[in-house]
Amino acid sequence: MKSRVQFRLRVYRDENIAIGPGKVSLLEAIAETGSISAAARQLGMSYRRAWVLIDEMNRELVAPVIETAAGGAHGGGSSLTRIGEQVITHYRAIENAARIAAAADLAALHGLLAP
Amino acid sequence: MKSRVQFRLRVYRDENIAIGPGKVSLLEAIAETGSISAAARQLGMSYRRAWVLIDEMNRELVAPVIETAAGGAHGGGSSLTRIGEQVITHYRAIENAARIAAAADLAALHGLLAP
Repeated sequence: MKSRVQFRLRVYRDENIAIGPGKVSLLEAIAETGSISAAARQLGMSYRRAWVLIDEMNRELVAPVIETAAGGAHGGGSSLTRIGEQVITHYRAIENAARIAAAADLAALHGLLAP
Repeated sequence: MKSRVQFRLRVYRDENIAIGPGKVSLLEAIAETGSISAAARQLGMSYRRAWVLIDEMNRELVAPVIETAAGGAHGGGSSLTRIGEQVITHYRAIENAARIAAAADLAALHGLLAP
């Protein structure tokens, strides 16, 4: 059997997920591909769904997370704003810090699994 | 708006969640109430569902997580075994360690939320 540990961090505003694993993965894919549609494709997500997630982030955060170059939403390419980059940086830093700090108890929990 | 951070830890074995937030809450409720049926009621879960979760843990872990006193599953009362207690201890310790270690980045992420 293969075992793995999944840490999931979600920041809620009222009942909405302002920042969560799906949104952070989307930002990373946009940074990598330079395009919302390519990022959506990479994640197996519809363009519409990607836009909804971005729109939610733009409304939940202090400033927009992406900027789109001339050519329109589909055409001109998109890149992260400084806020978009900061979301990724802090989110991944939290995951890493959590894994390191919890290493001993994670190992102990693993030790309770049947072989 | 009210914002809150949720950390969710899940330990997978292949595609199954061996240890996760639902199972740990159930163990805590059994420890508190001394009974599977009272614990299920407290969590708004069916008795059958509670039993499925316990049965999964008993199979995924090195030893059973609860022991049931004479009187049968419904009658005699249930308590945690040492393994059941250790699951709770390590799981909650991981959450606490993660929150403390990630405090600075969590605060930074919060600072990106719109007021």
